[in-house]
Amino acid sequence: MSLPNHFELLATDGAARTGRITTPHGVVRTPAFMPVGTAGAMKGVHWREVREAGADIVLGNTYHLMLRPGAERIAALGGLQKFTGWNGPMLTDSGGFQVMSLSDLRKVSEQAVTFRSHIDGTKLELSPERAIEVQLLLGADIIMQLDECVRLPATRDDVERAMRLSLRWGERCKRAFEQAREGYMLFGIAQGGDVPELRKASARGMVETGFHGYAIGGLAVGEPQAVMLSMIEATVPELPADRPRYLMGVGTPEDLLEAVARGIDMFDCVMPTRNGRHGMAFTRHGQINLRNARHADDPRPLDEESDWPGTSDISRAYLHHLVRAGETRGAMLLSEINIAYYQRLMADMRAAIAAGTFEDFRIATRADWARGDIAPR
Amino acid sequence: MSLPNHFELLATDGAARTGRITTPHGVVRTPAFMPVGTAGAMKGVHWREVREAGADIVLGNTYHLMLRPGAERIAALGGLQKFTGWNGPMLTDSGGFQVMSLSDLRKVSEQAVTFRSHIDGTKLELSPERAIEVQLLLGADIIMQLDECVRLPATRDDVERAMRLSLRWGERCKRAFEQAREGYMLFGIAQGGDVPELRKASARGMVETGFHGYAIGGLAVGEPQAVMLSMIEATVPELPADRPRYLMGVGTPEDLLEAVARGIDMFDCVMPTRNGRHGMAFTRHGQINLRNARHADDPRPLDEESDWPGTSDISRAYLHHLVRAGETRGAMLLSEINIAYYQRLMADMRAAIAAGTFEDFRIATRADWARGDIAPR
Repeated sequence: MSLPNHFELLATDGAARTGRITTPHGVVRTPAFMPVGTAGAMKGVHWREVREAGADIVLGNTYHLMLRPGAERIAALGGLQKFTGWNGPMLTDSGGFQVMSLSDLRKVSEQAVTFRSHIDGTKLELSPERAIEVQLLLGADIIMQLDECVRLPATRDDVERAMRLSLRWGERCKRAFEQAREGYMLFGIAQGGDVPELRKASARGMVETGFHGYAIGGLAVGEPQAVMLSMIEATVPELPADRPRYLMGVGTPEDLLEAVARGIDMFDCVMPTRNGRHGMAFTRHGQINLRNARHADDPRPLDEESDWPGTSDISRAYLHHLVRAGETRGAMLLSEINIAYYQRLMADMRAAIAAGTFEDFRIATRADWARGDIAPR
Repeated sequence: MSLPNHFELLATDGAARTGRITTPHGVVRTPAFMPVGTAGAMKGVHWREVREAGADIVLGNTYHLMLRPGAERIAALGGLQKFTGWNGPMLTDSGGFQVMSLSDLRKVSEQAVTFRSHIDGTKLELSPERAIEVQLLLGADIIMQLDECVRLPATRDDVERAMRLSLRWGERCKRAFEQAREGYMLFGIAQGGDVPELRKASARGMVETGFHGYAIGGLAVGEPQAVMLSMIEATVPELPADRPRYLMGVGTPEDLLEAVARGIDMFDCVMPTRNGRHGMAFTRHGQINLRNARHADDPRPLDEESDWPGTSDISRAYLHHLVRAGETRGAMLLSEINIAYYQRLMADMRAAIAAGTFEDFRIATRADWARGDIAPR
């Protein structure tokens, strides 16, 4: 059964695309980067700043939210948007990835994955049907099928087994999704590790099932960037042009640029906030470590040409001081600065694709990064 | 030598007063509560929210700032306002209290206090002259004399010795302050422990020296509230009516109400942010512990009548979740909620004094607190 399409493709430039996804809580401009609000909040950043930075959509983690405060509780409180105060589009992952990476004693069967909570050790089961039920209770605009994500390196047999299981789980998720309200979306997830043929087979199977959009999972888990890009290249031609494509858990600004160049529309990653908490700033000049002593007496901002006040108005000396002193405000400012940089990069990519100048933009942006930071003063 | 007066008394109501202090960076409405930005930043709160909450002035800690990033560095970067981005009035303490409470191996002589930094063990000396030099380098609008603050309980001899030393240090601070630019202010600090006669003698000696304003130090260090209030009652009559009076390091909302009723104009305390980080909210209903399970399913805000969005729009259930999950945003929201409550309390006190209804306000506010939180649902 073909699901209704909420994606509108506005322009292409080479393989790069720009478009818009219409959700019950608003429009998402693509290519889109979704900042991650793991447990119903962005770490160190209020929603106001996330909005002001230009983000249309944020991501919540089903695994964390189902453990605490619980999906039924959030549903009783009016759903994730009302609960958290983020009044815009949201996407929830299925919990599969976190079950693999965070929980203890997980066991995967055809029926479901069983695991122990990393918070209190409670034994829990997550089936494809429960993953959808939980996400429908949370009420995100876009929800994800349950998949099995294997760690790389893995044997081809293990990769194929998990990929086939994910396809079967995708079909069960689609059936469970039939109770969803109009306008909400379910995305399938292609797996296949680092094996191009398995990636292709996964994508074909997923498209055969038919989803609102298509994700590529199980990448950016430690493999070289070249492997990730060639897996994208293997997958994208198998995906329909009229549906959104989402590369999960990616990545660095360079990853985003190269993945958009290969036809990806959506991303999520904790990197802007996590690196911000560790004193790192993403800028036009590349990544800058504010802990470095060279910034201690530098009155200059990170990038005076930025339109984000934190980036253009606050001195490197002050940021350096906050990071060194372990002041929360350092992590807060750098997380915002990084979210704003990511959103600016996405906006610039959208504009370049619309103008047909994406390749020029890609070259110029890479040159800026390669030039590195401004000289110390 | 009498120093120019930058305080204007607008109205009195009983012993309570409302007025305005004009500083080089703007006007401070009194009674005023100064949120504490220890090391050049408020913990978990941006300046924008501090401003929106209604704070006119914030406090910086000389001890922390002289150790890191250093007063000379901040001066070279344009002073504390430019460095931190707080574009309003600031007050810096003299460092004396933190030297007593945080540093190691301190030794007090007539000349100065020597101590080891709690950060890296460096041996440092802080004399009255250096305390003023450091604060002038920092560039705060109001700076404090160096004093010696003794821990209570202490013998009367110890209290008197420290009080007399503080008076002599006050005179040296005033001489050192002569190099300050027009419009900046120096406050003396009265000591005297829990001995009324020593408090009076300290206040008289301080007024004889002559400062822009007068502080009461060495209280709210563990003594019962009744002791603190009687020390205020012993001191205030010795202070000139036309100068601002500052009760250092105080306190709870009830402390503020009772101290304003006894003629105090200024306060500072880390309580709004520190308690916020520990899951506590100050509200019209008294102090509320968001960690308590009773809030887990409560869709109601802390106080729907509050004009602070975090207090009136965010559910107790969400705040409870953030606190339980250890999410930074919980500490951020509660710190803001508390700063906003403190500022609202000060604004209401100012209005009541101006209207001549302070005693009614005091009774009504205490009744609200005594009534406690709304019933669980």
